[in-house]
Amino acid sequence: MDNADLLFKVTLMNSSYTRCVDNDELEVWPEFFTDPCLYVVTTDDNHRRGYQAGVIYADTRGMLHDRVSGLREANIYEKQRYRHIVSMPTLLDVADGTARVETPFAVYRIMRDGRTDLFATGRYLDSVRTQKDGSLRFAERVVVCDSSIVDTLLAIPL
Amino acid sequence: MDNADLLFKVTLMNSSYTRCVDNDELEVWPEFFTDPCLYVVTTDDNHRRGYQAGVIYADTRGMLHDRVSGLREANIYEKQRYRHIVSMPTLLDVADGTARVETPFAVYRIMRDGRTDLFATGRYLDSVRTQKDGSLRFAERVVVCDSSIVDTLLAIPL
Amino acid sequence: MDNADLLFKVTLMNSSYTRCVDNDELEVWPEFFTDPCLYVVTTDDNHRRGYQAGVIYADTRGMLHDRVSGLREANIYEKQRYRHIVSMPTLLDVADGTARVETPFAVYRIMRDGRTDLFATGRYLDSVRTQKDGSLRFAERVVVCDSSIVDTLLAIPL
Repeated sequence: MDNADLLFKVTLMNSSYTRCVDNDELEVWPEFFTDPCLYVVTTDDNHRRGYQAGVIYADTRGMLHDRVSGLREANIYEKQRYRHIVSMPTLLDVADGTARVETPFAVYRIMRDGRTDLFATGRYLDSVRTQKDGSLRFAERVVVCDSSIVDTLLAIPL
Repeated sequence: MDNADLLFKVTLMNSSYTRCVDNDELEVWPEFFTDPCLYVVTTDDNHRRGYQAGVIYADTRGMLHDRVSGLREANIYEKQRYRHIVSMPTLLDVADGTARVETPFAVYRIMRDGRTDLFATGRYLDSVRTQKDGSLRFAERVVVCDSSIVDTLLAIPL
Repeated sequence: MDNADLLFKVTLMNSSYTRCVDNDELEVWPEFFTDPCLYVVTTDDNHRRGYQAGVIYADTRGMLHDRVSGLREANIYEKQRYRHIVSMPTLLDVADGTARVETPFAVYRIMRDGRTDLFATGRYLDSVRTQKDGSLRFAERVVVCDSSIVDTLLAIPL
C-alpha cells in the first residue's frame, strides 16, 4: 500500500468514525481503536506543555466502553446532537505498519430546540495501525482542541 | 471500478455540485440528477419519523428546473450567497450499479452587508448511479438537516 | 498522472498548506509557491469586478517572506490561532503541466481567552504547477473571500 492509498483509507476511516458518533451509534465507537489504545481529549495549551492527562483519557477499549455507558446513563443524546466536519489528513510519518497522521476538524452542536453553534475546532493527532486483515485502527487518537475553554460537561467522543 | 475509486468520484461530484450552487450556476444544477430522481430537503426529526414530504420535494428534473426559475424570479441571489463545506463520504452499500452514500456538510450564508452565519449542518443521504458514459448522477439526494428549525424561506438548493 | 491522481495530490498539498499556517510554521509557507508567483487575498465583490489588487498582493517568494517577517514583528500569533477547514477541490482545466483548481474553505479564529469565531469563508482559485521532481507548487493562489468585510488587520495567510 503506497502513501496515497493509505491516506485515502485514513480519510474513509475518519468518515466512518464521525458518522458513528454523529448518528449516535456509540456502542460501535470503541471498535475503531486497538486494544490497548490511547484516546485523549486535550487543549492546545496543555498539549504544548506536554501534559498527558487531558480532559478525557482512556487507554483500553474497556475504558472507551465505560465512557459510552456513562453517556447512556446521562442521556446526553436526548438533548443534543453533533456534526463533525473533517478536513483532509497530513501524513507525518510511516514506520513499522504505523502511520502518524494529523487531521483538522470542526464540530457543531445542535440543541433540541434547533439552535446550532460551533462546539470545538482542533486537530486529531493519530497513530493508525494496519491490522492483519488490511483494515485500519487507531492505536492513538489525541484530540487537540484549539480553544483553552473546553466544556467541562464534555462527554461525547470528539 | 473498485469502491475506493467510486468514493473518490463521489467526492469530486460533491465538489462540482456545491461549486455549482455556491457560484450561482443553478441552471446546471438539475443535470447532477437522473430523471426521474428524488431530491428532498428534510429535518432529522422528520427523517427519523419516516416522513417523506420534507421542506422541499422534487422527483423529476423538470421540478428542479421549476425551483431554479422560482429562485430567479425571487432574486434571492441578489441578497445572499452560500458556501458549502463538505466532509468525506461513507459508502453504505453498492448494488446493481447504484451506491448508497452518506456525506456530512455545513453551509454558511453570506449576506450582502458582509455578515456571515452558519446556515445549516446535516448530511446527504444519496443514491448515486453510474451512467453509461461512466459519469455519476444522483438518483436520490435526501438532504437531512440536523436542526429542526429550517428557514421557511429556504429556497436555495442545499 | 491522471486527473484523479492530480486532484488527490492537490488535496494533500492543501492539507500541508493549512497545517503549516495553523501550526504557526510560517517560515515554510513561501515554499508552497513557485518563484515568481501570485498570491492575492481579495473579496468576491472585487474579484467579480476584475480588480487585481486585493487586500494582500505578493508576486515573489521574497514578498511572501517579508509578510511573514511583518507578522513576527507584530506578534500576532501570540494573540490568536486559526483553523482552516478545506473542502475537496474541483479541477477546472489542465494544460501544459498547470492545473487550475477551485477549492472552498472556512477559517476559524481562536482568541487567547478561548473565544472562537468564524473568521472567513471563501474559495481558493489556484494554478498548480507540477515541478521537475513531481511535487506540486502554487503558481497562483487567489484567495476569494465571500464576505465584503475583510478584517483590515488581516495579516495571517489564508
